[in-house]
Amino acid sequence: MIRVGILGAKGYTAGELMKIFLAHPEAELACLMARVEAPEPVAKYFPTLRSLVTLDIEPIDLEALATRCDVVFLALPHTAAQEYMPGLLEKGLKVVDLSADFRFDSVELYEKTYKVTHLAPALNAEIPYALPELFRDRIPGRAALASPGCYTTTSILALAPLMKRAADLDIDHIIINALSGVTGAGRKPGDAYHFPEANESVMAYGVAKHRHRPEIEEKLSGLAGRPLRLTFTPHLIPVNRGILATCTVPMKREIKTAEAHAWFAEFYKGETFVRVLPEGQTPTINSVVGTNFCDLGVVADPHSGVLIVISATDNLLKGASGQAVQAMNALFGLPEALGLIPGAGARELK
Amino acid sequence: MIRVGILGAKGYTAGELMKIFLAHPEAELACLMARVEAPEPVAKYFPTLRSLVTLDIEPIDLEALATRCDVVFLALPHTAAQEYMPGLLEKGLKVVDLSADFRFDSVELYEKTYKVTHLAPALNAEIPYALPELFRDRIPGRAALASPGCYTTTSILALAPLMKRAADLDIDHIIINALSGVTGAGRKPGDAYHFPEANESVMAYGVAKHRHRPEIEEKLSGLAGRPLRLTFTPHLIPVNRGILATCTVPMKREIKTAEAHAWFAEFYKGETFVRVLPEGQTPTINSVVGTNFCDLGVVADPHSGVLIVISATDNLLKGASGQAVQAMNALFGLPEALGLIPGAGARELK
Amino acid sequence: MIRVGILGAKGYTAGELMKIFLAHPEAELACLMARVEAPEPVAKYFPTLRSLVTLDIEPIDLEALATRCDVVFLALPHTAAQEYMPGLLEKGLKVVDLSADFRFDSVELYEKTYKVTHLAPALNAEIPYALPELFRDRIPGRAALASPGCYTTTSILALAPLMKRAADLDIDHIIINALSGVTGAGRKPGDAYHFPEANESVMAYGVAKHRHRPEIEEKLSGLAGRPLRLTFTPHLIPVNRGILATCTVPMKREIKTAEAHAWFAEFYKGETFVRVLPEGQTPTINSVVGTNFCDLGVVADPHSGVLIVISATDNLLKGASGQAVQAMNALFGLPEALGLIPGAGARELK
Amino acid sequence: MIRVGILGAKGYTAGELMKIFLAHPEAELACLMARVEAPEPVAKYFPTLRSLVTLDIEPIDLEALATRCDVVFLALPHTAAQEYMPGLLEKGLKVVDLSADFRFDSVELYEKTYKVTHLAPALNAEIPYALPELFRDRIPGRAALASPGCYTTTSILALAPLMKRAADLDIDHIIINALSGVTGAGRKPGDAYHFPEANESVMAYGVAKHRHRPEIEEKLSGLAGRPLRLTFTPHLIPVNRGILATCTVPMKREIKTAEAHAWFAEFYKGETFVRVLPEGQTPTINSVVGTNFCDLGVVADPHSGVLIVISATDNLLKGASGQAVQAMNALFGLPEALGLIPGAGARELK
Repeated sequence: MIRVGILGAKGYTAGELMKIFLAHPEAELACLMARVEAPEPVAKYFPTLRSLVTLDIEPIDLEALATRCDVVFLALPHTAAQEYMPGLLEKGLKVVDLSADFRFDSVELYEKTYKVTHLAPALNAEIPYALPELFRDRIPGRAALASPGCYTTTSILALAPLMKRAADLDIDHIIINALSGVTGAGRKPGDAYHFPEANESVMAYGVAKHRHRPEIEEKLSGLAGRPLRLTFTPHLIPVNRGILATCTVPMKREIKTAEAHAWFAEFYKGETFVRVLPEGQTPTINSVVGTNFCDLGVVADPHSGVLIVISATDNLLKGASGQAVQAMNALFGLPEALGLIPGAGARELK
Repeated sequence: MIRVGILGAKGYTAGELMKIFLAHPEAELACLMARVEAPEPVAKYFPTLRSLVTLDIEPIDLEALATRCDVVFLALPHTAAQEYMPGLLEKGLKVVDLSADFRFDSVELYEKTYKVTHLAPALNAEIPYALPELFRDRIPGRAALASPGCYTTTSILALAPLMKRAADLDIDHIIINALSGVTGAGRKPGDAYHFPEANESVMAYGVAKHRHRPEIEEKLSGLAGRPLRLTFTPHLIPVNRGILATCTVPMKREIKTAEAHAWFAEFYKGETFVRVLPEGQTPTINSVVGTNFCDLGVVADPHSGVLIVISATDNLLKGASGQAVQAMNALFGLPEALGLIPGAGARELK
Repeated sequence: MIRVGILGAKGYTAGELMKIFLAHPEAELACLMARVEAPEPVAKYFPTLRSLVTLDIEPIDLEALATRCDVVFLALPHTAAQEYMPGLLEKGLKVVDLSADFRFDSVELYEKTYKVTHLAPALNAEIPYALPELFRDRIPGRAALASPGCYTTTSILALAPLMKRAADLDIDHIIINALSGVTGAGRKPGDAYHFPEANESVMAYGVAKHRHRPEIEEKLSGLAGRPLRLTFTPHLIPVNRGILATCTVPMKREIKTAEAHAWFAEFYKGETFVRVLPEGQTPTINSVVGTNFCDLGVVADPHSGVLIVISATDNLLKGASGQAVQAMNALFGLPEALGLIPGAGARELK
Repeated sequence: MIRVGILGAKGYTAGELMKIFLAHPEAELACLMARVEAPEPVAKYFPTLRSLVTLDIEPIDLEALATRCDVVFLALPHTAAQEYMPGLLEKGLKVVDLSADFRFDSVELYEKTYKVTHLAPALNAEIPYALPELFRDRIPGRAALASPGCYTTTSILALAPLMKRAADLDIDHIIINALSGVTGAGRKPGDAYHFPEANESVMAYGVAKHRHRPEIEEKLSGLAGRPLRLTFTPHLIPVNRGILATCTVPMKREIKTAEAHAWFAEFYKGETFVRVLPEGQTPTINSVVGTNFCDLGVVADPHSGVLIVISATDNLLKGASGQAVQAMNALFGLPEALGLIPGAGARELK
């Protein structure tokens, strides 16, 4: 069994990792650490896990971590993960980082976006952007992986099939309107997430300056083969979990829904975790919550001359912890679905 | 006092009309009618109004209506309102129609959009589109008004200030992403509005074919002076009330947020019910719910070259009943805010 | 016009007071103060009030308050209000206190419940418990009023009609299960009110030790004429506003629903703000939200031998600000409904 | 592998059964049937299961069912299940019935409660009430099981440890206040479950006459050894899933929380699916949603002389489908947790 450690074990993504590893047939929780004074029971932070996870959450101790684990998941805030990465790698641990710290190809773009100095720029080039559906081949043999986040995964998977279609589509004028549940903002209370403020409301935020845009642009530009700029407007919606991204792409010629649908079906053929819906259908948040799926639908609008691609994920699973485990599975040469599809893993292994 | 009748008194917009007229200093509820077998108490449908509205909801009887009322609000489904309009006008009643039946300049476009034959095409030209902020001068002296709905009002008010700016903006490629609370779908239960299906989810619907797009296009085209086509993607969100429309408009030259903000501030100067937020701010749904305001914010995105205009209304007030009363006030030569701003009406009249 | 000041102008109850006074025909907002460094616009805290309330929220200054106001509402946390009360009264201001600081007949019980020393015990006896439906006669001529809170009002109004029925009912074994919306916890973010924690959940809290029980007991004991003890279990539910209290009272003889209903109808006859529902009906939260009503229903359960009384209020109105204004109206000799029933006030005064 | 069929495959409990059997190491979905005209994909009703469940939902055909399955779950409305039971048993199938049709010891009480004639009274005595924690020994060797529902399970597990404590407690005067999420009402839309009506509200229903009371009474009376009557007041709350029952039991002598807690800890010692929380803690809905646990907390209130027991379950799991699978496991001689605790099943079997 692969022995799994989690750094940052008090946050929502850590809780999801714990649930996944309870069901994972080839890996098991070995060590939970966070900024705590003394060991605390998991149930204090995740009451549903009472009696299921018997490990305590311990103060951070990298030596102990190295002894007890084979792989460590960094479930830490952006800019905090990079502090731990070099030390963990030196100890020979495999690392899956859920933060943005090693997601950028360009260290400069990272520094500009997060307004910090990168602490391990040399390592950055060695750590691939572990979105398996697009960059699966970069994963094997790595010491560490940078696991993409929720807005980025949902947006990139929606648009990747179109990046080679610049002859048909005006990929320089893409508009992404994204809606996120409140767990996307993490566990720390704040005015905007106080129940009476968030409930029965919706707000756009980070308009024209959200820090996930540079990441989406860098990856899509890479797929397109030339620099792209896009509009990304995120909104907070009163649900616990889930992201819905509505992407609008101008067409250069009239494309029918059937043709666009075929592009998506072909592009994601054989992918377990991307479900291209039947032609004409678009996904909802409740069709993906609790799963590691990204559901996609595409509709052509000949009247205004655009393609509308709608994408949905569970922000804590395909947008965070599920995807990180999917990548870890790939790193360890296991079927990607292990622990992520109920029972499927166990059966596939038989 | 103006004596007010409501046809279709069981629906959500009717309930809002009742609340407004309780507070209106120059008008009072005189007659409530709907498809009922026998008189029913208002509290059956609107329990908050128990003891406040003592009229019953009666079976429809146009004769009685004509005797007891000066003005009638049609709170009926689209395509049902037009059945009543001619008869009501013949009896000399003023009519404010909340449905789409008389909102189109082009009867043909109405018929194509709603897939029915218009029953009173001759009347259609006599009934103005009563969005006071834009078409106030068309209201006085009319027998009937067509009051705009929620998606349309929220979208049109967001974009109207830009329609004369075709030199600066690419108004031929506007994208509207709109989010609506569930009361927008009316009172009739259905699978998509069943609590466990709508709660904790979001869905896009009517993608590339929603019937409010033609109305928005017709009005904005009128303001622009040439035919426009736009992309309109509505979504259902798990809140009771409120609409948020996020509109993206490509720029032809670099415009700063301050400049765009000044356009809006100037355009809506003196308007009671459109609040242009301070520069850089964008509205939320809970900043308008329970009010007749449309709040607007605009942010320029020089990186991708677009203006982002965000607009919020309460779909049942500025998007329906509040706006209808605002228009009725204008029709009767009263201050538009009567009954719509707490206490203001009474004081202005003193 | 009565000039109104609010101390503690940033909280939810203050926002409701502002809305009420906008509509009040005989009183107007004159001064808003809170713990702020410098004047701040009301819209920062209450975005719906932008353009409606043009006063700023200013740093606390009792001299200025005394000059500019006739009456001050203390919308401060429990134990903070008593610090201001003596000074305000000395300056000749009328005061309506929304906190618990002067609600107890017994200073000792207050001190035990709130675990502080009462700072103005002598004043306490001069400040009546201003629940108009039960203690209306104590209000006139007072300098200050203690306005009851949400759990207490909802519970006391539900049970008051039974306190003289000790021959029929076992009033020594009353069970109150109460459910409160999250605004009841105030505006300050905290773990339990973080959207993803409160949403889709319910929790009981303060079990067997909630500080509103002593207040409910003291008042009901007063009505019963002897000391009562009761069980009070509050729960937090995922709604913004509203309280529902389900009260179970053992019967000493078989009582029919009709008989119990008649007790309530008789007891609250003529009361504007208590609505005894038709026989057999019980209230819901959405039948009172946005109003100053307390809705009541009673059902006899002959099978288990209890009466079940269900009571609903809007915790911010009849449970806080609405009730405080109702009491202020009584204090100033005005009709109690002024500002609290849409339009009614203005009309009654004509 | 045990081959599993589901009759009534369109409802919420059926969807949960499907999810459970995807993860079950010893059983697999073999047949899904419901009142459909022609085969329909599962994703039409359960979009999260797209690509996971590849069986269609077929029209009901008992012959086919008998050929393809070993055990059938009846996920049908109350009074419909009994129509199928005799035929299924004749064909030699094992049956787990999620309805109330065979839950009562007394056929007469069933008929009175559900206002129908029981169609298979002779069978009724052969079908045990399959609440494993209390009646585990009745399960082995049976042809069919009656699986308890949500309110009943949550209430009975909360109170069972007290039924032999009549010397310490007044078990003749128990009050249960229960709160249920909206999935408890099933999938069929209706006025009370229409999003804008259920959201932001709470309502009590079935006051003094809910049909789950007789079932709770019959089972608790059986445990107590004499007939009990209790008060049961259910409420609908705006969450998708979850039940919270707050039970109040008068004490005959002063009992401390620690003593009562010890009773519960002892009573449920070794039970996987009942978690007695640490002394002084009480459960919340979000501590059990998505699990098959029943969480319990007990607090003594010496002031008013009662014990307060609070119990929480997921109404669709421990309150329906999870419990049914738990019982099926027991029936087939498997560990009860198979398929119900992530990964645990697979590991225990190795």
